[in-house]
Amino acid sequence: MLVYGDEKSASYYKIELACALLNIDDKWIDVDIMAGEFKTAAFKALNSNAKIPLLVINNGQTISESNAIVNYLAFNSPPLSSERFVFAKVQQWQFFEQYSHEPYIAIARFINKYLGMPSDRKTEHSAKQSGGRKALTVMNEQLAHSNFIAGEPLSCADISLFTYTHVADEGGFDLSTYPNIQAWIKRILAHTSFVAMGT
Amino acid sequence: MLVYGDEKSASYYKIELACALLNIDDKWIDVDIMAGEFKTAAFKALNSNAKIPLLVINNGQTISESNAIVNYLAFNSPPLSSERFVFAKVQQWQFFEQYSHEPYIAIARFINKYLGMPSDRKTEHSAKQSGGRKALTVMNEQLAHSNFIAGEPLSCADISLFTYTHVADEGGFDLSTYPNIQAWIKRILAHTSFVAMGT
Repeated sequence: MLVYGDEKSASYYKIELACALLNIDDKWIDVDIMAGEFKTAAFKALNSNAKIPLLVINNGQTISESNAIVNYLAFNSPPLSSERFVFAKVQQWQFFEQYSHEPYIAIARFINKYLGMPSDRKTEHSAKQSGGRKALTVMNEQLAHSNFIAGEPLSCADISLFTYTHVADEGGFDLSTYPNIQAWIKRILAHTSFVAMGT
Repeated sequence: MLVYGDEKSASYYKIELACALLNIDDKWIDVDIMAGEFKTAAFKALNSNAKIPLLVINNGQTISESNAIVNYLAFNSPPLSSERFVFAKVQQWQFFEQYSHEPYIAIARFINKYLGMPSDRKTEHSAKQSGGRKALTVMNEQLAHSNFIAGEPLSCADISLFTYTHVADEGGFDLSTYPNIQAWIKRILAHTSFVAMGT
């Protein structure tokens, strides 16, 4: 299996973390997200949405969307439970991540960290704060009831949500106001197979 | 099982269509999305993200996020294949729907149809057109290669994408320029268990 991605991006790290926690060997092909390589015709032929990360399986079949890749990697393993209700809860939190979390926290971080907070994006960055804080509040409430976001054990939902949450301060979010999230981050950092972003 | 939803919304229809295609009886509790009932403390106790639709299982457990509910309903049935690659492709298209499709097409439709295109939302409505057209183009390209969005047979990805796509004209999108999408809509309309939105 090959992965096209940008090693500086948290969505790439999502897959890297899944591989580590699932003990999967990977071979990375780095694509520089800022150079627009993923918009070339050759890459678009692999993935019509022209987005990274992209997983290429040995037979040439491809899977895009970071959470779908994580779930492919975790198929039939404990982080993607085959028990109907737990499976649905893992998915619930992954869709939450894509709709109610990533568009605020990841984009605010992108504007600040990748683009250097240009003046013409400051209004957008500010507008992302409210939605991002709401997402963190929802997570913090859930984590008052369970050690991991979809219950026990650590699941693909934790992998999906950890990546941008643990660097949310780079988007302007103060994690010290979400104690249950901080405790959850510590639990994931303490996992014996944990790998840090960018290593 | 109970579903909290708004029968005028396409995300509610997503679940209604899944129930029809899967031959599941449902009992609906209607929540009026415009009246803000879903923001009450009682509803928030069921679902901290305070969003509909919400599925309540007989034992009181809840599942939110429309696509997670669809996948719960379809668990172990053909629309949610248990073959690893097909399963991943279905999920890929569902995450695409949540990140690259719904935020443009559904929001543009909401501004136009639900809010009556107020003058202070016209700029936002216009800004949604480009992303919506991109999503429809990606779908149209895929549907040049397969009868259904994730291949054969009809899957949960079709259920997730059909709902907002088949009413995209209400958001300002001209479906006549996407012939493969039009043919796909006709295939779904022709399904023997198909139910129309709002019936």
